[in-house]
Amino acid sequence: MRLTQYTDFSIRVLIYLGLHPDRRCTIQEIAEGYNISRNHLMKVVQQLASAGFVTSARGSGGGLTLPRAPDQINLAEVVAEMEPDFAMVECFRENNECVITPACRLPPMLARATRAYLDVLRQYSLADLLGKSDAAKMKLLLRSA
Amino acid sequence: MRLTQYTDFSIRVLIYLGLHPDRRCTIQEIAEGYNISRNHLMKVVQQLASAGFVTSARGSGGGLTLPRAPDQINLAEVVAEMEPDFAMVECFRENNECVITPACRLPPMLARATRAYLDVLRQYSLADLLGKSDAAKMKLLLRSA
Repeated sequence: MRLTQYTDFSIRVLIYLGLHPDRRCTIQEIAEGYNISRNHLMKVVQQLASAGFVTSARGSGGGLTLPRAPDQINLAEVVAEMEPDFAMVECFRENNECVITPACRLPPMLARATRAYLDVLRQYSLADLLGKSDAAKMKLLLRSA
Repeated sequence: MRLTQYTDFSIRVLIYLGLHPDRRCTIQEIAEGYNISRNHLMKVVQQLASAGFVTSARGSGGGLTLPRAPDQINLAEVVAEMEPDFAMVECFRENNECVITPACRLPPMLARATRAYLDVLRQYSLADLLGKSDAAKMKLLLRSA
């Protein structure tokens, strides 16, 4: 059981923006900071923007900022938005061919477990991911990448 | 966020065996019952056996049985055993290259969420997955597959 790289990268983008609240950041510098593919980040940022988790300004002097304070950006909401699905087993998907589906008791159990997972993440915001002392350390780590 | 097909199939095998407590079942009939690949099931059953979730008898008249009562087979234990990992993001893996890892606060949050997920599943056993009325219905569905 994993989150997608897509969600992983989206959290990294938000952390990066949270670490630099005083200016716009470019996809280029975020990609360089984490040493990851700029192309991957483009799509991630596009969805983050369309979901309202980042604000994107075009043109020279453009770049990305957070549209609200880090304590207003909830981790469960980010994960729920960025994960393609929470289709734990086949019967959660459209092309389900599992024959016992009409009588199976597994789906509500897995749905409850998934809710519990997201309920834990709902207790955290981007502000919790930053934290003063760790934020300074992360900024240094990103600069030396 | 998904479970692997491997875990999905392993739960189906256990349900099948739980539905037929009075006899040994073959991989062949389970594959036919669910209309899934026998080759996939082979590996699943091998790991289920080596983890002690099924007992496998070789030779003619051989086949699979449950080594203990369904209420003694815990869903969280099955999922924890059969999932390749719970490596939610890159830093949970060996080849981690995320530069902010030494200062990042995300891993313990995701670990807590994963524990909450498994804690819900720990409340259920294979007996809960069967249930009398649904068991009869599932047996019919498997026969008509």
